[in-house]
Amino acid sequence: MTTLVELGEDALIRRLVPLLPRDPDPLAGPGDDCAAIDPGPDSPILLLLKTDALVEHIHFLPDAPPAAVGWKAIARVASDFAAMGGRPERFLITLALPPNTSVNWAERLYQGMGDCLRQCGGLLAGGETSAVPPGSAKVIAIAATGSVRRNHLTLRSTAKPGDDILVTGTLGGSRQGKHLTFTPRLKQTDWLVSNCKPSAMMDLSDGLAKDLPRLAAASGCGFRLDRDPLPVTAGCTEAEALGDGEDFELLLCCRPDRTAPLLSAWSAAFPDLSLTCIGTMVEPAVGQSLAGGWDHFAPAP
Amino acid sequence: MTTLVELGEDALIRRLVPLLPRDPDPLAGPGDDCAAIDPGPDSPILLLLKTDALVEHIHFLPDAPPAAVGWKAIARVASDFAAMGGRPERFLITLALPPNTSVNWAERLYQGMGDCLRQCGGLLAGGETSAVPPGSAKVIAIAATGSVRRNHLTLRSTAKPGDDILVTGTLGGSRQGKHLTFTPRLKQTDWLVSNCKPSAMMDLSDGLAKDLPRLAAASGCGFRLDRDPLPVTAGCTEAEALGDGEDFELLLCCRPDRTAPLLSAWSAAFPDLSLTCIGTMVEPAVGQSLAGGWDHFAPAP
Repeated sequence: MTTLVELGEDALIRRLVPLLPRDPDPLAGPGDDCAAIDPGPDSPILLLLKTDALVEHIHFLPDAPPAAVGWKAIARVASDFAAMGGRPERFLITLALPPNTSVNWAERLYQGMGDCLRQCGGLLAGGETSAVPPGSAKVIAIAATGSVRRNHLTLRSTAKPGDDILVTGTLGGSRQGKHLTFTPRLKQTDWLVSNCKPSAMMDLSDGLAKDLPRLAAASGCGFRLDRDPLPVTAGCTEAEALGDGEDFELLLCCRPDRTAPLLSAWSAAFPDLSLTCIGTMVEPAVGQSLAGGWDHFAPAP
Repeated sequence: MTTLVELGEDALIRRLVPLLPRDPDPLAGPGDDCAAIDPGPDSPILLLLKTDALVEHIHFLPDAPPAAVGWKAIARVASDFAAMGGRPERFLITLALPPNTSVNWAERLYQGMGDCLRQCGGLLAGGETSAVPPGSAKVIAIAATGSVRRNHLTLRSTAKPGDDILVTGTLGGSRQGKHLTFTPRLKQTDWLVSNCKPSAMMDLSDGLAKDLPRLAAASGCGFRLDRDPLPVTAGCTEAEALGDGEDFELLLCCRPDRTAPLLSAWSAAFPDLSLTCIGTMVEPAVGQSLAGGWDHFAPAP
């Protein structure tokens, strides 16, 4: 009997997704940060859809402040809409909690969700609550709709060999607290899609070592990572920057002739957030590989 | 410290929902079977949104056939779209599973989901997988979008005193298997909204004893239940018909002068599924109350 931990998350998804009916030719489907649905050729706006979950002991510890857990639950999803060049709109919240959970914990969770929804411009549309058996982990599942202008849609599958690879902010050390307090890069992606649309983009949720190969594979490319300029969070090692995960920074690609003007305009627009060129997309045959990053069904490191 | 089990599900939702930003004037918001979003006055079609979850030990037992669990996960959500007079379209699937879950279990779960999606006309749009700690219950969260014609939208808040109360099929005994194998009443609601639109409608998920008071309260009405014609599943008691939950039949209301023609047309259209008049909506002051039904945070019966 093969178990999920033996198969791994990416292989599991490859086995499961073909079992379900799907759009024959999606704009962006399972595998991208959000699904993108085309309401019809006359619509300048596409519908974006996303689901995500936080699990106690996996995404937050039992003693984490519940308001911070609530913030994170919404912010992770908002970050995926940012990564597509879009905006979140309506949220559906599913709570699966042990019956001995305190009402105060649930209320503070919702206060944190509310703070993040107000910052992101999202609205509650519906929800579901269920008990889990005593002793089971808390699970918070968030689904959301959003929108993106058709010409702003940014995918992870559209990089080309020769593109520069860039990353916002610094990487690593998320477990020291940033994973509960990060701000989704909505302002930055709003600016990017209007001023210098990336050739490809995603948000960094499982670590650069996991996510950069995903973006490259989705684009049919390889990559060469330049480790010297890698923006490592102060106090972290390079391995942590590559593998900690939950950075929620943007990983984007840019045609090489547009990189210098982008970097210049960026530093004027966002003087407090770095944008760093960390490598180049290449033909698959000459690409590197990377080890590390977060696999939901791998044994704990 | 008050716990969720002490507060109860409905009171919990009343405490949590006001903490989040919402549509100021929703067509149907938290509390109805789906949320209904108006894309604008020119659109004849409204967007419907729904989320739901299945938890091991609560909604299915560990030895339940995984394909039946998958069928149920999709069918519960499809039933909510039926209850609004609409259709489900795109599905987002979140799995939170212990790492020692067998790949075969997950594949058979997805096969059951696929069977129900094909029957309901739903498509997979995206998903998320996460581990839960060993020993935690499996959680399957489903979110979906759908659509309904503006003039077909059917709410639970629009019944009026004097309306007849009707129910499809038979009630009770879901735990003997029907809760895993039921067919969402999409064909029937398609027919109803075109032929005899109910004055109010919902699906029966938590038992008539829980759901009829909810529909009445949402409509600002009371109710009088006529127990003699109550369609009790063979082998069940009246208490089970009222309280078992997970019938996934339709509870609907009808202006009294339209009930006889509805019953006659229904039996011609659906000779294999009963439709039974079980009572009358009344002014709140003269209504009955009912005990029983399913509360997710109540102690097990």
